[in-house]
Amino acid sequence: MKLKVKTLKFSAGRPVAILHKKFAENSSIHVDERIFIEKGKNKIAAIVDVGKSFLDENEIALSSEIIILMKLKQGDNVNVEIAPKPESLMLIQKKLFGKKLNEKEINLIISDIVKNKLTEAEIAYFISAIYKSGMVMKEIMHMTKAIVNTGNKLNLKGKIVDKHSIGGIPGRTTPIVVSICSAAGLLMPKTSSRAITSPSGTADAMEVLCRVDFNVSELKKIIKKTNACIVWGGSLNIAPADDKIIHVEKLLNLDPKPQLIASIMAKKISVNAKYLLIEIPYGKNAKVSKRQAKVLEKDFKILAKNFGIKVKCFLNKSNEPIGNGVGPVLEIFDVIKVLKRKDKCYKLEDKSLELSGKIFELCGKAKKGKGKEMARRILDSGAAFKKFREIVKAQKGKIREYKPAKYKKDIYAENKTIKEIKTKEINNLARTAGCPLDKRAGVYLYKHAGDKIKKREKILTIYAESKIELREAVKYYRKVKPVRFK
Amino acid sequence: MKLKVKTLKFSAGRPVAILHKKFAENSSIHVDERIFIEKGKNKIAAIVDVGKSFLDENEIALSSEIIILMKLKQGDNVNVEIAPKPESLMLIQKKLFGKKLNEKEINLIISDIVKNKLTEAEIAYFISAIYKSGMVMKEIMHMTKAIVNTGNKLNLKGKIVDKHSIGGIPGRTTPIVVSICSAAGLLMPKTSSRAITSPSGTADAMEVLCRVDFNVSELKKIIKKTNACIVWGGSLNIAPADDKIIHVEKLLNLDPKPQLIASIMAKKISVNAKYLLIEIPYGKNAKVSKRQAKVLEKDFKILAKNFGIKVKCFLNKSNEPIGNGVGPVLEIFDVIKVLKRKDKCYKLEDKSLELSGKIFELCGKAKKGKGKEMARRILDSGAAFKKFREIVKAQKGKIREYKPAKYKKDIYAENKTIKEIKTKEINNLARTAGCPLDKRAGVYLYKHAGDKIKKREKILTIYAESKIELREAVKYYRKVKPVRFK
Repeated sequence: MKLKVKTLKFSAGRPVAILHKKFAENSSIHVDERIFIEKGKNKIAAIVDVGKSFLDENEIALSSEIIILMKLKQGDNVNVEIAPKPESLMLIQKKLFGKKLNEKEINLIISDIVKNKLTEAEIAYFISAIYKSGMVMKEIMHMTKAIVNTGNKLNLKGKIVDKHSIGGIPGRTTPIVVSICSAAGLLMPKTSSRAITSPSGTADAMEVLCRVDFNVSELKKIIKKTNACIVWGGSLNIAPADDKIIHVEKLLNLDPKPQLIASIMAKKISVNAKYLLIEIPYGKNAKVSKRQAKVLEKDFKILAKNFGIKVKCFLNKSNEPIGNGVGPVLEIFDVIKVLKRKDKCYKLEDKSLELSGKIFELCGKAKKGKGKEMARRILDSGAAFKKFREIVKAQKGKIREYKPAKYKKDIYAENKTIKEIKTKEINNLARTAGCPLDKRAGVYLYKHAGDKIKKREKILTIYAESKIELREAVKYYRKVKPVRFK
Repeated sequence: MKLKVKTLKFSAGRPVAILHKKFAENSSIHVDERIFIEKGKNKIAAIVDVGKSFLDENEIALSSEIIILMKLKQGDNVNVEIAPKPESLMLIQKKLFGKKLNEKEINLIISDIVKNKLTEAEIAYFISAIYKSGMVMKEIMHMTKAIVNTGNKLNLKGKIVDKHSIGGIPGRTTPIVVSICSAAGLLMPKTSSRAITSPSGTADAMEVLCRVDFNVSELKKIIKKTNACIVWGGSLNIAPADDKIIHVEKLLNLDPKPQLIASIMAKKISVNAKYLLIEIPYGKNAKVSKRQAKVLEKDFKILAKNFGIKVKCFLNKSNEPIGNGVGPVLEIFDVIKVLKRKDKCYKLEDKSLELSGKIFELCGKAKKGKGKEMARRILDSGAAFKKFREIVKAQKGKIREYKPAKYKKDIYAENKTIKEIKTKEINNLARTAGCPLDKRAGVYLYKHAGDKIKKREKILTIYAESKIELREAVKYYRKVKPVRFK
């Protein structure tokens, strides 16, 4: 069935096609069903809406997600056909019923996710199925491979190092570590995801200063220039399945273990990393317990070995936000502070040096026990900051001051010592205030656990872009009390 | 924030609001977030799309789901505000993590579903959570009450009887049973849902002959006239939460037990049923095993007692489709055949008489063991068919002949005896052919298990509205072979 494209310029967060009511009825296509849109070699699955007044019967209005992907313009002819119910649905059901999936079955699910054949609700079922039934190591390997193979690869050569932190603790070590390592001559093409369970991912924070969305050929130029990059993996179409899955996981802040492991490893394989440091913070306020951290370490080792990557896991007890800022703009403040060697942000500095040192030792750049020292020398010399500026410049940005969000609320101490700052609750607070979408929103901590303070001294500020969000955030703060006093 | 309504006449299957890109950016509202639309006392949550060319900055385009619910017209002013992330999300997460929910928490989730505050993906998580973690009887009671209280009630008086079949076996007994019971003077206001795991629900099948979508006051007139009705529960806003949940369950043909029980019971409470017969087919080709059927029976008894309903569960082994037709039009063919006393459709007739008889015995209309006899007398006398015509007429319809779908494929016998007809696979076949949305699609069985047949005799016909669907259905038939020969 041929239809004429009408470019209405709307975006729906997913590929949506609006058909004329009459046409839909005559073709027995219904709202919320899937159709294939085809032009030349391009074919994409879209969800059907039905419209009337603004369309002719032979027209189809497509959301910008489709227009851009298929490079369509007003008046183009496209072919439309009913998409059969994807076979992968039966496989998701199978997993939800507790059965194992084989390589072919996992490939089909992942490829249907990438090709947009599954709706968000169906992806939610897949995530729940993994969450409920788990996956054995073989399934995780298949999933890792499937995620790699449905996306682009960087095909870089050289001593490529990489790091990953299992989220949960705010504070951006990555930009600091990348700057130190690449200043030392290592190749560190860092692709990050946006926030999942935290109020800001590395990509969200870097986007404050520069672009993070590049295609593969642009990225190669950046890496050639600077030995490094700090970008968002999504725009590279590296592991695109993962981005779609994470989008749905975010709704409920879920992150089932098999998907977490496969997702991390797939990204490292796609950039051809040879040495990989994985930081796993554990403890009451982190994402995992010590026992879970050890299980993760074991799983990562098996998986990495299978894919020829030398891996080290760095387990550490972590109890509160590492920096002062929580939220994209507020976190990047901290990063610049550490790199500039001016104001102090001790915890963030120390953690970054430790991670960089471990990478040096892992790839043989420094002797065992000497890595952190080497990292400190590079940071103190200003070479790391110089490298960071180069990276930001290569990514079409500039280091400058940013203001936090319009509306703010200061919170004052209730007593003289802070006993605990609850990470999960501070994260939720920053998210309630609008993070990560509102980059200037978030929480700024003036004090940390153990600090002596004066009664009624300011301990933190909440920032939000709208009055409603600020009100909700303050309400949340009062309800859950993320800061406990002695 | 005030915006002017633009009625674009599009429907998205969920409430969608398209905002101008500039306005959205300035208000820090993003695609896929939720906003509240408010006018007078009406307030509804919608999902945000963002558009440009066809909207002014101060305009908002609303999907017909919102336009109709809020009775809006072009140029109306509405108030728009950002909807905070619903609290119920945290509760869904809690359930997914295996914790119990209390009454207040279940009320909040159900009321957020009804108020449209949750997206389909979020509802999918809730269904998965129930599926994964189950619910204790107390939770099921709370959920039943919540589903009743968020919807309309019929408030009828009298000896109200009702029946329910736990789906899975095609063949429509309900229209026949309602006709027999109401012909005997009982009050039987039957509300049905549309298909969940089968290719056609009672409402889908009745809709072939007459309207099934009425509001409560229209319905009361129908019942006053005929003592009965056979309508779709959805349009009555009886147990609306249930309809929304079922819509998402359908994607994966799921039907977790706690939701199944609460949903059935809620609908019966809402129509004030006093006597309730629940048919539970079990066996290899039914939805549940014998053991599961007995557990269901126990649960239903506890729940019904709690709500003052006299219940009888009728467990029977059921191995293949009861009628010949599978699909809305094809199933209603069978119903009319039985009521007219012309062509025979033995199994469907016998099952309908058995169910009607049990209802007579349950409410004291017939003595124990004498119900079925009484039912047969009413059917044979023509009183049931007369009553059915009255009901169809009161529901603004007429009994007439319908043709099945355009495209068809006959399937021939491979051998002389049919050993088994697999119900689940026949259901999937009919769904692949386009059921329940394409009413004339489906499967027509000429033979049943045990029947002697000639080699190459026609055993069934597949009907579909499009060549693609027919091709997919035939492919499915050849792959799974739903009919096994000796």
